[in-house]
Amino acid sequence: METIKKKITYGSSQKPNNRAPYAKRVIAISSGKGGVGKSTVAANIAVGLAQKGLRVGLLDADIYGPSIPRLFGVENEHLAWNDNNKMIPSENFGVKLMSVGLTTPQNDTPLVWRSSVAISALIQFLDDVAWGELDYMIIDMPPGTGDVQLTMAQEIPLFGAILVTTPQMLATDDVSRAIMMFKETHVPILGIIENMSYFIAPDTKVHYDIFGSGGAKRLCENYELPLLAQIPLTCKMRELSDEGKMAIIFGENEIKKSYQEVVKKIAER
Amino acid sequence: METIKKKITYGSSQKPNNRAPYAKRVIAISSGKGGVGKSTVAANIAVGLAQKGLRVGLLDADIYGPSIPRLFGVENEHLAWNDNNKMIPSENFGVKLMSVGLTTPQNDTPLVWRSSVAISALIQFLDDVAWGELDYMIIDMPPGTGDVQLTMAQEIPLFGAILVTTPQMLATDDVSRAIMMFKETHVPILGIIENMSYFIAPDTKVHYDIFGSGGAKRLCENYELPLLAQIPLTCKMRELSDEGKMAIIFGENEIKKSYQEVVKKIAER
Repeated sequence: METIKKKITYGSSQKPNNRAPYAKRVIAISSGKGGVGKSTVAANIAVGLAQKGLRVGLLDADIYGPSIPRLFGVENEHLAWNDNNKMIPSENFGVKLMSVGLTTPQNDTPLVWRSSVAISALIQFLDDVAWGELDYMIIDMPPGTGDVQLTMAQEIPLFGAILVTTPQMLATDDVSRAIMMFKETHVPILGIIENMSYFIAPDTKVHYDIFGSGGAKRLCENYELPLLAQIPLTCKMRELSDEGKMAIIFGENEIKKSYQEVVKKIAER
Repeated sequence: METIKKKITYGSSQKPNNRAPYAKRVIAISSGKGGVGKSTVAANIAVGLAQKGLRVGLLDADIYGPSIPRLFGVENEHLAWNDNNKMIPSENFGVKLMSVGLTTPQNDTPLVWRSSVAISALIQFLDDVAWGELDYMIIDMPPGTGDVQLTMAQEIPLFGAILVTTPQMLATDDVSRAIMMFKETHVPILGIIENMSYFIAPDTKVHYDIFGSGGAKRLCENYELPLLAQIPLTCKMRELSDEGKMAIIFGENEIKKSYQEVVKKIAER
């Protein structure tokens, strides 16, 4: 059982590299569990910051489930290089984007990569993309606490992490593990966003606690973290996601406002 | 860009090892995207097979988000060893269970493991657990198409894979990548289960297509695969999950029946 009990920890004294010297602040959007809307949150935060006139890049580090291209409506774009042999990021809503989703020939090409290859790809996205100068780089992290998370914490001095969860216990379990990981790697946690907090029926406007309630609030109390927002689920939001439109621009007023407040809190730190 | 374009493929002629000779049939429950209810589906299928009098083991291979212990209500149990120095699996509803969630001292202990360590842990779960003779081993795979999936396809002759998705396009995108991975690795796909197909309001019984509709049907048509079930989302189902109760036993009739039909289809193959 030695292998199972052995946990890789890394020295608190070891300063991370800085592979993104072009970015003033790098923020990781993370979750313990997949499918909680992490990419949607990352996309809306990036667009919100860009709407404030800031220069923003969004790196899709979710190698095996790259959702960013579709969320930004650029899923049919393909990678191009500039004269300096740097990859040119896609761009929409004022945000520069890079994702492995832009490098595959077809939408359903699977990236059956050993994680060392996945890591090399991400390192290339940090080193060899024509990001220009950025005020913010937002990283859409893969779910969990594996190789990519470790590498990112080692290769970039993260300004902070934002954790996304649903209220459900099965999700908050996983998020608490992610919180402990960031604590151990000395990455400041800026706060928690509860997504899919409740469902608003389009006809009756009744609120349903589909995924339970109070999950993020309990997490925030347990770990003394700020609750940045509680974002409801609506049929319109899902449609916007599939259509490459941003909730912070096209969403219902309540949702727009929630996101705008999150962006304000981030920009003020 | 060599690294990014290079994809690891492995020879179709290479027969996988058989690290689970004690199991007659090994079935992987997989998804492209996390958070679609893959673990819930895996748990209910395992319990359904056990209710038919079959000997069933469930291996939680979702190293970074082990949900199986809570779904089975054994999240506070800890690992024990027998006299032959084999790990004793937990057991509930007639299913033998193994999960990294049972090996960590606390629920929020993060597994900040390099993937090589994660793989070693899974290999130990195959080699060093007192599974006994099994008719079925169900593997709850992590989302995506990475190291764990590759290793499992190499180390075990899989009888087949079942893919779980929600109707949402962002989810079916990822599932189509998983389908291609299984095709490339010559693992037969037994079918697709659409989870959270629609939400049933507890008061009015109105159905809402929260996550869109028709996603799994489109996938099945595109890739010529059977649609095994469409399982709705109800408030009760989420409660059952958090309480360690199985929908196939305690759920609403409609849901029980859907799961029982899936189990029947699997057992008949």
